[in-house]
Amino acid sequence: LARSPLTPRWVWLDGRILPAENARISVFDRGFLYGDAVFETVRFYRGRPFRWDAHRRRLAKSLAHFGISAPKVDLLPASLRLLARNRLAEAAVRITVTRGVGEGLSPPARMKPTVLLAARPIPSDLPAQRRDGIALVTLGFGRGVGDATRGHKTTDYLSAIQGRRLAARARARDGLFVEHDGTVSEATASNYFVVRRGRLETPALASGCLPGVTRAWVLEEAKRIGLAVRVGPIEKAGLAKAAEVFLTGSIVEILPVVRIDGRDVADGRPGAVTGTMQARFARAVTRSGPRSKRE
Amino acid sequence: LARSPLTPRWVWLDGRILPAENARISVFDRGFLYGDAVFETVRFYRGRPFRWDAHRRRLAKSLAHFGISAPKVDLLPASLRLLARNRLAEAAVRITVTRGVGEGLSPPARMKPTVLLAARPIPSDLPAQRRDGIALVTLGFGRGVGDATRGHKTTDYLSAIQGRRLAARARARDGLFVEHDGTVSEATASNYFVVRRGRLETPALASGCLPGVTRAWVLEEAKRIGLAVRVGPIEKAGLAKAAEVFLTGSIVEILPVVRIDGRDVADGRPGAVTGTMQARFARAVTRSGPRSKRE
Repeated sequence: LARSPLTPRWVWLDGRILPAENARISVFDRGFLYGDAVFETVRFYRGRPFRWDAHRRRLAKSLAHFGISAPKVDLLPASLRLLARNRLAEAAVRITVTRGVGEGLSPPARMKPTVLLAARPIPSDLPAQRRDGIALVTLGFGRGVGDATRGHKTTDYLSAIQGRRLAARARARDGLFVEHDGTVSEATASNYFVVRRGRLETPALASGCLPGVTRAWVLEEAKRIGLAVRVGPIEKAGLAKAAEVFLTGSIVEILPVVRIDGRDVADGRPGAVTGTMQARFARAVTRSGPRSKRE
Repeated sequence: LARSPLTPRWVWLDGRILPAENARISVFDRGFLYGDAVFETVRFYRGRPFRWDAHRRRLAKSLAHFGISAPKVDLLPASLRLLARNRLAEAAVRITVTRGVGEGLSPPARMKPTVLLAARPIPSDLPAQRRDGIALVTLGFGRGVGDATRGHKTTDYLSAIQGRRLAARARARDGLFVEHDGTVSEATASNYFVVRRGRLETPALASGCLPGVTRAWVLEEAKRIGLAVRVGPIEKAGLAKAAEVFLTGSIVEILPVVRIDGRDVADGRPGAVTGTMQARFARAVTRSGPRSKRE
């Protein structure tokens, strides 16, 4: 295993905590053969998950949608145990659930799922990116609206990887998927928002974007503070006129976008609404914890 | 490893032939984490591959497209060695190449790819299906035309698996992807042809369908025998009026479709053009072998 700087020493695989280099799965695991798997990435702050229940519900919904058996294990204590073993408090835990082991496009019902929990520290370049903003490119392809996987966090990520490769060539951090109708659905692994005409805008879930946990938080917070919001299609051409653009995601949180396709967004600096949301998000995560304990 | 009846005893992994139950990969393999992988399935007849060069070229093209390093090993001798070890002569060999091992959506250039060869016998129900024909359903979703993965044989197959699940519920063998514009691009793991108005028709590659090796053979053969051919969009509504419909694929070969969405295609029996193509294909494969040996 060529360990990346972010790969920690221990992973949790099917109920056991193992050294990363010993964590191996069958080559007939359907996650490997077919991308027959879904996942969640949960941000832990000071050892406590942010919006655990939202992740848990989204995972359950996707598992049901694709007919993948739900893991029998309680994923929160398992995640906490894994973090403790890795001595991580500020971390991302990726929960991957595959349909199980076995060949064939027509899977039998009720296979035993493969469950992997992997924890990693938060990339150290994120605070600077959150302060200074990042550059994006628009991609000459979408993610395929209408595909059965849209709106679900599946491991079918090759389109996203291709987007990141093209972005890197243009010295941008990330790419925005432009769908066949000219609208921009999402970034390769984030949702996005624009501020224009005094409103906060983001594509509807009908665009095929992921129902992001941080996206939902921003929409709720905008309502709380009385910000005008529009949820609907955003054309690629409309991006250039935005006063502000930012990405949202569990790990990136709220990330200002200051250049798109080589052109500055407004004055090329993070905007006021973005800054307000970042400040409020920072406060929200200090109050975070599993919702189940409060409900 | 819950072995399927089709999973043989030995697999070839990164240069070594291993018992299937010992063939394991890192949980950080990008094929597993992200579907960051492409594959080919090659049909061997009497121990010799059909159109090896076409598969080899398609694989090379997809690897280059996604920037995945090409395997350093010669895949044909490796495949033959694997077939010999499994005592298989009539077989499908799946060649999977992942980008390698390591986390992160932005992969470093030139990773060491993971290469898996897995051989399996040909399903025993195929001859009856080829004789009697199969039932299909049209799916309420496409595969996402315009996605960066279209036209490439990637492991992002969850949409296909979902299609097979819905087909099974309708007691059909397979599903046809209906794209957002109402055209039918392909079946979940096959190309398709229709015969109507005395012509053989199949969608163009611009539909996003896979550039199938058997699809190409049928188009060449139609030209050789003077059959009128149209390559272009086929609307879902047009399928109902077809005189014949068949699927093509390296393993299914040429498979008559006799029912779509619960309705008979023409008189509900395999048609004459389909039969002609099946007979000519059966002759072609008895002449098969690696093209490289004749060139």
